[in-house]
Amino acid sequence: MKCRKCGSAAAIELRRHNAAFCAPDFLEFFRNQVREAIRKHRMFVKDERVLVAVSGGKDSLALWDVLIDDGYDTTGLYLDLGIFDYSKESRAKCDAFAAARGVSLIVSSVAEEVGAPVPVIKDVTRRPPCSGCGLSKRYLMNRVALDQGIPVVATGHNLDDEAATLLGSVLHWRTEALPRQSPALASTHPRLARRVKPLYRLSERETAAYAFMRKIDYIVEECPFAKGATSIEHKKILDRMEDASPGAKHNFLFGFLDRARVAFENVEHVTLQECARCGQVTTSTVCAFCKLSDQVKRATR
Amino acid sequence: MKCRKCGSAAAIELRRHNAAFCAPDFLEFFRNQVREAIRKHRMFVKDERVLVAVSGGKDSLALWDVLIDDGYDTTGLYLDLGIFDYSKESRAKCDAFAAARGVSLIVSSVAEEVGAPVPVIKDVTRRPPCSGCGLSKRYLMNRVALDQGIPVVATGHNLDDEAATLLGSVLHWRTEALPRQSPALASTHPRLARRVKPLYRLSERETAAYAFMRKIDYIVEECPFAKGATSIEHKKILDRMEDASPGAKHNFLFGFLDRARVAFENVEHVTLQECARCGQVTTSTVCAFCKLSDQVKRATR
Repeated sequence: MKCRKCGSAAAIELRRHNAAFCAPDFLEFFRNQVREAIRKHRMFVKDERVLVAVSGGKDSLALWDVLIDDGYDTTGLYLDLGIFDYSKESRAKCDAFAAARGVSLIVSSVAEEVGAPVPVIKDVTRRPPCSGCGLSKRYLMNRVALDQGIPVVATGHNLDDEAATLLGSVLHWRTEALPRQSPALASTHPRLARRVKPLYRLSERETAAYAFMRKIDYIVEECPFAKGATSIEHKKILDRMEDASPGAKHNFLFGFLDRARVAFENVEHVTLQECARCGQVTTSTVCAFCKLSDQVKRATR
Repeated sequence: MKCRKCGSAAAIELRRHNAAFCAPDFLEFFRNQVREAIRKHRMFVKDERVLVAVSGGKDSLALWDVLIDDGYDTTGLYLDLGIFDYSKESRAKCDAFAAARGVSLIVSSVAEEVGAPVPVIKDVTRRPPCSGCGLSKRYLMNRVALDQGIPVVATGHNLDDEAATLLGSVLHWRTEALPRQSPALASTHPRLARRVKPLYRLSERETAAYAFMRKIDYIVEECPFAKGATSIEHKKILDRMEDASPGAKHNFLFGFLDRARVAFENVEHVTLQECARCGQVTTSTVCAFCKLSDQVKRATR
């Protein structure tokens, strides 16, 4: 197999693009996909600050790596979920990456902000661990961005993540979630940072190859609570379809974004207001994060 | 396991309904699901004639059986696809069923109407066999209904069929197909019969159990051209989800019908006119069936 660009020996084959690349040309392909995402969805520009949410995994560190190299003004945000050794190791990867690249990393602790770490939140709420964790992450990302005066939060969600979320939303026809599935969510309130996903055009396999070729030291193991999550089941379904028909995931996600998403846009209008307790944006009087925090504090008092 | 209705030994468990039934109470449950489908979607009434498209398989014969027993004025329609022994055997099942029940069966031959049977159409068009076959079936069902003055065509599509079609439409975001996915399609033109699917609330396993308990002699083997069809792949995906979470198929299909279908309804408007050649309804000047028929006749002359 030969590189599509230069004709030398290929290091990676991309079946859905019917292409193969040597390592340097793959890295450039990867960067170009990120640039195209940023350009197409007007995610951010060079003189804006960008808060990059990093978990220590391959996706978010690969994203940060590309943005730094392209000269964006980035600040990292690591959210310490307090999940035993998994959190310690993933934080160490982020610290080491930030130090080596000379960029700043903010650390925010769920245990401090909510009152208990994710394993305790899981037990207190008796809901799947990803539920309270996701809620806390979205809240803290936005709050740190506001506190720092940063207008946009970038996350490392890739094509596989986005396609799996879409499949889950479609299998249950979550019509309130479908219009929000987008590579770029605008700020619809002064206290809401924009949210963007510059890796949505790149598969998990591609971000892993990028991180490997760039010698990024990332945490390989999955979150110990992810086992049995339905998102993983949905990824398996999509993986099988991709095997049978390369491009299936891409067509599913991009077909939705290009043709179907608009159909759900006007289904629901919500009124945003400021939480009576913390001032962050909510659709009710007190926001879900403050309610969660109250519940956790009552239970662990 | 005990019957939910009468407490005697159960003959079948329906996990998605969290119920089990003895044979007589299952048969009544089955009939009630068909009645509910007909009522909810105003499919047809007792003094209307109904054309029941039968293939010789379990679904369409089970449907015909229920409608006869409930006193509907039915006429069977068997479309002879000319698929070797498969077609001979399936026609024999329909003939025997109609004779035993004393109901009339119309037979229409694809070879006569199109100019060649499905195996030849497949070779001439060089498209998947289900493509020309489905087109011919939909056309002939409608034409026979018009010729006979019957206002509505009922087909044996079950929950599994409908969920698999929906999954295929969603994976490719066929926004033109999504609004047409419905248990009941109204007549939108004087030369278009209504189309209804009274079994859409019942799974393949349930129609098989009904046919078995009612001692209906149906053709068990699948169409020889069905092997490798994507609809079968989609059924496997849905079967795995159903295993993990009973009711998954039902929730997927019914969630779409209840909440999402409306979002696609206004996406596209088509203008229907009469085919310049055959007078049947089409969106272009000459209908797809006449074009197919021309192509087949040219190739086999």
